[in-house]
Amino acid sequence: MARVHNFSAGPAALPESVLTQIANEMLDYQGCGMSVLEMSHRSSMYQQIIDDAEASLRRLLDIPQNYRVIFLQGGATLQFAGIPMNFMRTGRAGYVVTGNFAKKAWKEAAKYGDAVKLASSEDTDFDRIPALAPVRERASAGDLDYVYICQNNTIFGTMFHELPQCGDAPLFADVSSCFLSQPLDISRYGLVYAGAQKNAGAAGVTVIIVRDDLLEDGPAFAQTPQYMDLRLQAQKGSMLNTPNTFGIYVCGKVFRWVEETGGLEAMAQRNWAKANLLYDLLDNSQIFHGTAQKDSRSIANVTFRTDSDELNAQFVAGAHERGIENIKGHRLVGGMRASVYNAVTMEDVEALAAYMHEFEAEHAPSPRSL
Amino acid sequence: MARVHNFSAGPAALPESVLTQIANEMLDYQGCGMSVLEMSHRSSMYQQIIDDAEASLRRLLDIPQNYRVIFLQGGATLQFAGIPMNFMRTGRAGYVVTGNFAKKAWKEAAKYGDAVKLASSEDTDFDRIPALAPVRERASAGDLDYVYICQNNTIFGTMFHELPQCGDAPLFADVSSCFLSQPLDISRYGLVYAGAQKNAGAAGVTVIIVRDDLLEDGPAFAQTPQYMDLRLQAQKGSMLNTPNTFGIYVCGKVFRWVEETGGLEAMAQRNWAKANLLYDLLDNSQIFHGTAQKDSRSIANVTFRTDSDELNAQFVAGAHERGIENIKGHRLVGGMRASVYNAVTMEDVEALAAYMHEFEAEHAPSPRSL
Repeated sequence: MARVHNFSAGPAALPESVLTQIANEMLDYQGCGMSVLEMSHRSSMYQQIIDDAEASLRRLLDIPQNYRVIFLQGGATLQFAGIPMNFMRTGRAGYVVTGNFAKKAWKEAAKYGDAVKLASSEDTDFDRIPALAPVRERASAGDLDYVYICQNNTIFGTMFHELPQCGDAPLFADVSSCFLSQPLDISRYGLVYAGAQKNAGAAGVTVIIVRDDLLEDGPAFAQTPQYMDLRLQAQKGSMLNTPNTFGIYVCGKVFRWVEETGGLEAMAQRNWAKANLLYDLLDNSQIFHGTAQKDSRSIANVTFRTDSDELNAQFVAGAHERGIENIKGHRLVGGMRASVYNAVTMEDVEALAAYMHEFEAEHAPSPRSL
Repeated sequence: MARVHNFSAGPAALPESVLTQIANEMLDYQGCGMSVLEMSHRSSMYQQIIDDAEASLRRLLDIPQNYRVIFLQGGATLQFAGIPMNFMRTGRAGYVVTGNFAKKAWKEAAKYGDAVKLASSEDTDFDRIPALAPVRERASAGDLDYVYICQNNTIFGTMFHELPQCGDAPLFADVSSCFLSQPLDISRYGLVYAGAQKNAGAAGVTVIIVRDDLLEDGPAFAQTPQYMDLRLQAQKGSMLNTPNTFGIYVCGKVFRWVEETGGLEAMAQRNWAKANLLYDLLDNSQIFHGTAQKDSRSIANVTFRTDSDELNAQFVAGAHERGIENIKGHRLVGGMRASVYNAVTMEDVEALAAYMHEFEAEHAPSPRSL
């Protein structure tokens, strides 16, 4: 078995030790005589699994007691509607549009009320996080139910390096692709949520962390599907109905692995070391260039390209031959993308960097050592 | 490793051979160097997995070409809202209330329009499928957008043995707990859907099979969350966003296993043999009795009890000591329940039957051989 260098943007690389544990427990979870896949979600055994997952996550992020953790299904896309349906009480909320998923969230919210675009970087093809002063100014009017951001923009390789000031409005963030890449001060948010398929585990789990006072009144919209009613889901401990039991189990394993390998500070250091190896290479390359503006660069998704679509395709094909996989950029933007999530090792990144050097030596207009 | 006799109502027993395959492929799926858990849902490798799963299901159920297969998340509970949001066009639909989940679906639908209760067995604690003539009569008025049933009632151990006549209204069925237990003539339905965590695979996958003409106009409600828009999901091949990739992979394995072990006719024979072993025992017992009326009995969930809560608890505790697990009835009804889904073997059922004989011999008022 030869494992490849997997730079997928999600579902994405998982730690080998986690996969090994999962394989070993597949027919018999810790001597109980059945697989987690076969376990009633109402059993005490499974309750322990979901409780342990939550406890581990609470330790990792130091989640304050007045925040609830909910494990749902349906991904970010379901929450694009779920957030306005639950929280657009006066009918107006603010959105910062920094990429594809932020834009989708903003458009979906417009079905349920006045979704105000507070700032956008679409004019420069989402290559940056826009100036946040307009967000503070608009929020100071005090008429927004919440301010929504997509904190890391997977497709465009950008990330908020500071958070907007939102006045009295709570800040809501889709943190899918930077979740557990680095510490996160939960107390600065009203709600964060993350599709787990990047850094946190398996596709099909959405982790929602929400301040409990925001749940008190139930959903803003009477026609909110019961499944999407976050107050109800919190009351039911994510078990209004059968959750993605196996996915939550995988997440729990990943949370423990992050704890055991040093927690989020250590993870952030390693992640920046990996990302910066590539950013430095890009900044010194004659043929590759990063697509995100420097002060907006992501810790998790390094996007780059050459000036030639043909050369990009050639690079991706050559990567595949070297066991470097999922390096192709998102279909909306082309080029290349290396997602350097937690489970991607420095060795993986070094293999990619070595190939980039090799490719550059072959294709640069005036070959030189980088 | 000793595997237990697992009678869980869902998530439920899976074939050992399927679990073994999953374990073996956990770090390296068929030589590709990564786990299915780590695979981009946009990769050709994953597309093959979901395509194979659908093709296998189409063969198993002989699904007509004008039906679409969609793999979603959120379970039946999300579809309780999704169905009226998509299909309640004139604002009125009919519901047959035969149990807890049927009642939840009916109540949820009432958020979106006039959900007419066509028939109910609540007056006898859902111990039967009610007479269906009133459904035919009411449907003949021609003003129902659809007629909804829950075909097998997991908690109460009942199942429709004939389908209601619905006039021009399409029949919609939640078939979660009898899905793949027996053949299903898809052409008689407008839509069927099933939570996969019973017979079909992993929790966190909902399989929806829907006649394509019903999707033509898009959702009935403008405020339907994009994720729940079945036309859109069908257009996107269940990949509007990241699906439960691993769960669908497990389902595909289970579908293949059903094909390889003889298909749905063979499965139905084996399932009735297992269920009837228990029903016959119940019909001849002095202390146990089945809770479902005979003409409404389920192929999948055998519900029974003694007349004493104490004795029920004693039976469940003794079962556990014998490696017979998840035999306790649903918390709403108490007593016992043995779910004899496809992956539950005749040996499992014989072990349970032997224990029931033993228990009866010990506790019957006048012990006798059954």
